[in-house]
This record gives sequence, structure tokens and C-alpha cells, in this order.
Amino acid sequence: MRILVQKFGGTSVRNLSCQKEVLLKVKNGLDQGYKMVVVLSARAGDTNNLLALAREWSAEPDPAECDALVATGEQVSVSLFSMLLKDNGIKARSLLAAQIPLLTDEEFGKARIRSFDRKRLLELLEEYDVLVLAGFQGVTGNGRVTTLGRGGSDTSAVAVAAALSAEFCEIYTDVDGVYTTDPRVCSTARKLDRISYEEMLEMASMGAKVLEIRSVEFAQKYNVPVHVRSTFTDTPGTMLIKEDPKMEDVLVSGIAFDRDQALITLRKAPDVPGVSARLFGPLSAAAVVVDMIVQSPSLDGVTDIAFTVAKKDLQKALTIVEGMRASVPDLIVAHNPKVCKVSVIGVGMRNHSGVASRAFDALYRENINIMMISTSEIKISVLVEEKYTELAVRALHDSFELGHTDTIGDR
Amino acid sequence: MRILVQKFGGTSVRNLSCQKEVLLKVKNGLDQGYKMVVVLSARAGDTNNLLALAREWSAEPDPAECDALVATGEQVSVSLFSMLLKDNGIKARSLLAAQIPLLTDEEFGKARIRSFDRKRLLELLEEYDVLVLAGFQGVTGNGRVTTLGRGGSDTSAVAVAAALSAEFCEIYTDVDGVYTTDPRVCSTARKLDRISYEEMLEMASMGAKVLEIRSVEFAQKYNVPVHVRSTFTDTPGTMLIKEDPKMEDVLVSGIAFDRDQALITLRKAPDVPGVSARLFGPLSAAAVVVDMIVQSPSLDGVTDIAFTVAKKDLQKALTIVEGMRASVPDLIVAHNPKVCKVSVIGVGMRNHSGVASRAFDALYRENINIMMISTSEIKISVLVEEKYTELAVRALHDSFELGHTDTIGDR
Repeated sequence: MRILVQKFGGTSVRNLSCQKEVLLKVKNGLDQGYKMVVVLSARAGDTNNLLALAREWSAEPDPAECDALVATGEQVSVSLFSMLLKDNGIKARSLLAAQIPLLTDEEFGKARIRSFDRKRLLELLEEYDVLVLAGFQGVTGNGRVTTLGRGGSDTSAVAVAAALSAEFCEIYTDVDGVYTTDPRVCSTARKLDRISYEEMLEMASMGAKVLEIRSVEFAQKYNVPVHVRSTFTDTPGTMLIKEDPKMEDVLVSGIAFDRDQALITLRKAPDVPGVSARLFGPLSAAAVVVDMIVQSPSLDGVTDIAFTVAKKDLQKALTIVEGMRASVPDLIVAHNPKVCKVSVIGVGMRNHSGVASRAFDALYRENINIMMISTSEIKISVLVEEKYTELAVRALHDSFELGHTDTIGDR
Repeated sequence: MRILVQKFGGTSVRNLSCQKEVLLKVKNGLDQGYKMVVVLSARAGDTNNLLALAREWSAEPDPAECDALVATGEQVSVSLFSMLLKDNGIKARSLLAAQIPLLTDEEFGKARIRSFDRKRLLELLEEYDVLVLAGFQGVTGNGRVTTLGRGGSDTSAVAVAAALSAEFCEIYTDVDGVYTTDPRVCSTARKLDRISYEEMLEMASMGAKVLEIRSVEFAQKYNVPVHVRSTFTDTPGTMLIKEDPKMEDVLVSGIAFDRDQALITLRKAPDVPGVSARLFGPLSAAAVVVDMIVQSPSLDGVTDIAFTVAKKDLQKALTIVEGMRASVPDLIVAHNPKVCKVSVIGVGMRNHSGVASRAFDALYRENINIMMISTSEIKISVLVEEKYTELAVRALHDSFELGHTDTIGDR
């Protein structure tokens, strides 16, 4: 059985005329002889409307009830789309998470998939040509509705593709692929034909919001070929695949940026074992996600530590840091909420030196001060003042010749 | 464990301020030491909006998908109300039909309840003080969502009350009980303190829309005391109970009427065995529900047959009747869509004669022509021209002294 998984987001299913476009994509898959699982999000706006209702009802809505509430959005879109398929003579049915079941843990609001009943799905695919699966939702071992968090439909799609060993997982969205950077910031941004899972992970986590990060992790783990493309055109999008040697010929794949960063700097922290633990332990306990961390070499037994958190967590983080002053009276705490992280990403970095210096040089030429640097095997991130975001992105994009000009070969 | 079941309709849960009224009723039940099952309908308007969506998507929406679609209405109201309960410190959770499970047959759109997992409900009631059950919905043996048809939440409530041997099933609605007749038609209509299941069945099927008829059948079958009352007052409503001897002292309990009737008359039908089968077989096959049927004694080997159908089915019924003309060329077919059935109902009729003649006399005094008569043990129905509806109802209501005057004892 050749299986194709297609996933459509809220914009693609928001009304009947959009769903008729989706129908064409599904027919296209059927014409190619595939059995299909079509994963849908809620219609655009539905999830937000439901969350707004929850907030009207309760300042802190019970997470389990909130999941039961918002999961109705997907139930609406899959039942409507299944009606459309059946009216077009296609053997199809809607499928809720509880009907497979798609089991998750009990972390309501951001549940993680534990298992699919693969056998049941295959049985259903014997009986039906198209299963219209409600994305974003799951069910706990004792039958309560969960949701996988924002963008969770991508994860549902990739996970079901992995479970069924589907040939492809097509993620349809309102953009036509993954770009070298945000085209709204850099007009020469170019669509990538291919990108490795690893690069995509860095792009996604850096704020390139095309694909939810957990779905990329799933795709990487189970080696699912993911094709990110547009519902509203027929042109190929970007294929996410395993890194291959050819990819490394290209030094840099893209420039990502994330404005949702706030910087906290601690000066004169005692440079003794356990100081980091005393700092980051309480932050973690308070669910504050720390992104970049830099610690300078010690001088005179004290050290400087800088780190970034999401802007919304800044106050919470500062309160925790201030709490350290009881035991470290000399500690100097500074913060800056107006910063942005810009990242240069590419698997080619592994085998090429000079990427960092070329990036720093490009920023220097624009007179942009680098506040912090952190690097991984395939990325270099710098923290800059927020006002320099666009300038920094364009400078780096140009410097690595990522734009669509005749001199740049297709990748 | 003392168990109380409360059911609230769409008007009672339509917004937060209404749900706060519902909360007071639930607290009241908890204060009396009950474990509770609260059955909710969808918020007023939600079900209709969802059905309108289905009709936008498909001229004839797939029934199974339509059920999955409209069942979301109840899921929304139970999760919202559960948030409210939890915010008020009440140990509560929402409960979908699939989570019990509440099993039905596969008649999507009008499924019938097959069984409740009573044991599971009792276990949940050990853990929670209030279970907020999504009314109207069920689930088939293989896990597909069904709905019980319009008014199905009443049936859910009575069925769960029966399954759990609840002390009472309180049906909260926007009227404060069952009246001797429609107060909009007859200003002296009086609320009944008690009514027998049987009388209520006749009232409900005659178009008194307080309670869904299947819920009354359930209540009767399992002898569940049902209290019909208003969400928005504290005054007692009407108690549905088993007929007791005292009830028979009262001749007539109420006057019901149903304007949704159209009359078809066949003259010169051959009076041979099987003629009724040839007529009503095809009507039944075409899902036309026939209500009143009268056949006159034969004269010269031909007979007259008159029957009523719902107004919407008139054309369909006429087409079928016309089809009979091929084999019965002399048949004369007439019809009248402007008729109304008015019924006098009361268990007291069993032991009292003269009810029929008193009813006919009341109509005669108002010069209302009776087009058809049919009777049962506890009711007398007459078909009159639709324009006489109000006049006929008031004449009968007065004639049997049902109005609230000092001379009428409370019942």
C-alpha cells in the first residue's frame, strides 16, 4: 500500500472555496494511486475564538477542559471536509484522535505523542481511500482529550506519516516553501528547493515559523521526507530530507532571526561551582525558557553571566535573579528587552572555516554592535540591538550570496 | 451514593452569566449532599449554526460526518461549564459520550441509546462530585460519534438518571413547567404540579415542546421521577410521575394542539383487503409519517379514507397517492394543508364517560366544524380548520375548567 500524508493548515480549510482547493490536492494524490491520510487544522480563527471563550470563562482555564474545548475546532474542519469528499464520490471518513487512538501523555495544552495504533490505521485504509484526521489533538490513556500545542497539526501529520511509513508527508501552507530568510525583511530572499532536517530545526527554532519544531524532530527521527508547499499554487515547495554530501557544498542555507528575546546580564557573580545551577535551576522550575547563555572567563574570583529569555518572561526572570542578591550582595543585574537574535545556518559550516569571521565582518561593515555570540555545529547566532534586525539580516543574506541573482546556482 | 441528575438546555448555557445561574443550581444540589451528573445542551444557536455550515458544505450532508460536526456544540458547553465549576472549587470534569462510553445504534442523526457503562460512571462519581455530561451525543460500537436527534439531551439526562438510579432527574428549561395548554394561546393556562408519564407523552407528541418524547418514554420505562422547572426561578415546576389513583379524580389535564398537520382525503377507494397496505406501505417507505387515520364504513364496495401528515410531507404524500390512480381510476383525491389537531388529554378519562360529548359540545357552541375525530384511552383528538386553533383550544380549556380561577383546586 502506497501511502501519502497531506496536511493543510487553518488558512487552507477556512471556508468552502478554500476546501475545494484542498479537494484538488487530494484528488491529485488519489490519481497517483495513493491511499491517503489528510490531516487538517481548525479553520483559521476557530482556535483563537475558542481560546478567547476559555479566557472569558476563566482567568486560568483548567488545562484539560481547555483542550476538550479547543479540540472541537479540528473536529469541525475534518467533518466538513469529509462531507465534501463523500459528495465527490471519494471513500472517506473523518477520524478523531480518540478514534484511532492517538495516545499522548497528560501534558494538557502541549501533549507529546506516545503512540499511534498503526494496525487500526492500516485497517481503516483498507476500507477507506482517504482518512481525514483531526490534527493537533490526542487522547490520554484514560480517554481525555489533549492538544499538542500550537502548530501541533504538523506534528500529527509527520507522526502519522512515520507510523505508516508514508512515501511523503506534504505540508500545505500559505507560503510556498522555506526561504533563505523572511522575504518581508529581505526582498531578495529565495525559496530553497531542499533543506536538511537539522538546518530546518535551526530555522524553525530561530523563529522561521513555517513548520512546528517538533514535527521536524519527528521527521528527522523517522526519516520522513517532508514537502512544504503552498495550497494555492502547483509549484513545488521545499523538500526536507536527510543531509546528503551535496548539501555541504553550500556554505550557508539561510538567515533566521528571533525578535522575541530579552537580555539579562549578571556582573560580579561568584565564580564557584554551582553558581549556574543556583541561577538556572529556579528559572527552569518557573518554566522560564533560557535561550542563549554566555559566561565569561573568571577574573578575581568573579564572573559575568549573560543569557536571554522570551520577552514575556523577562519580569519573572528578573524577580528570580534579584532573589540571588540575598546571598550575593555585590551582584549587578542589568537587562535589555530590545534585542534580537540573528542566526546564520548551514550544514556546510561543518567542513568550511571562515563562516563566523565573514558574518562578523558583514555586521561590522554596517556598524552593528554584536552583544553576544553563541555557536553550534551548523549555526552562528549573534545578539544585536532590536533596531538593527532588518539591517543585520540583509547584510548577512548578501554577504553569503543567498539572494536570487543569476550568479547563484539553484540548490 | 445519592445521585441527582440535572439537565440544562441551550438557553440556560448560552453565555457566562447564564452559566452562573446554572452554577447556583448545581451548588444547591451539592449542598443537599448529592453526587451530580449535569447534562448540558449546546449553547443556544450553536447547533443551528453547525447545521447551517453542513448545509453550506453539502446539499445532503453525510449523516455520520454531520453528527461528528454538531456534537462539537455540546463539547464546547461542557468544557466551558467545567472550567467554571473548577474555578469555584468544585471537583468536576467534562464527560463526552465516547468517554463513558454511551453506546447507541448507528442511526446517525437520530440514534437510540443502547447502553451506558454504569460501572464507569459510578467510578467517576467516586472521584468527582460533578460530572458534566455532553447531552445529545452518543458513540457507536466502533467509536463513531452519533447524535440522538433534536431534544436528545433530555433523553441523555433521563437515561443516565435511569442507569444510575438517581433520586431525581431535574430538567431545567426556559419555561417553568408543563401547562394545561400553551399560555400564548390561552391566557388562563395553569401550571400543573404533577402529570403522569402517559399524559406527558400525549402532551409532548401533540406539540407541547417542553420535553422530548423519547425522554418521557425512558422516564416511564424506568420510573424516573422527572422535575421540569425553570433555570431562572426557584419555584417548583411540574413533576412527571407514575400515574396514581388520585390523578384520576381529575377528568382532563390539558389541551394540546399541533398545527403541523395536512389532511388528505381519498374517496371511492375500493374496499378490498390490502387497500390500506397499498396506501400506507409506500408512504412509510418514503418516510412520510402518517398521524391520524380515519376510514369510513364501506358503501357499495367503496370506502373513504382520510389521514393527516406533517405539512412538509404533503407534496410527497400526494405524489404517492396519485400513483394509486393507475390501478384505481375512479379514486378522488382531495387535500387541505390548513388544518390543526386539537387534543383533550387526561388519565381521568379512563373512568369517566362524557368527556367526548363535552368536548364536541364546546366546539359546537363556538360553531367550529370537526373534520376528523380520533381517540385513545386517555385522549380525544379532533381535526379543525387551522384558523379555529386558538378558539378551539380556549373553548376546550374553559369547558373542562382548566384555567386558574379560585374554583379550581390545585393539582
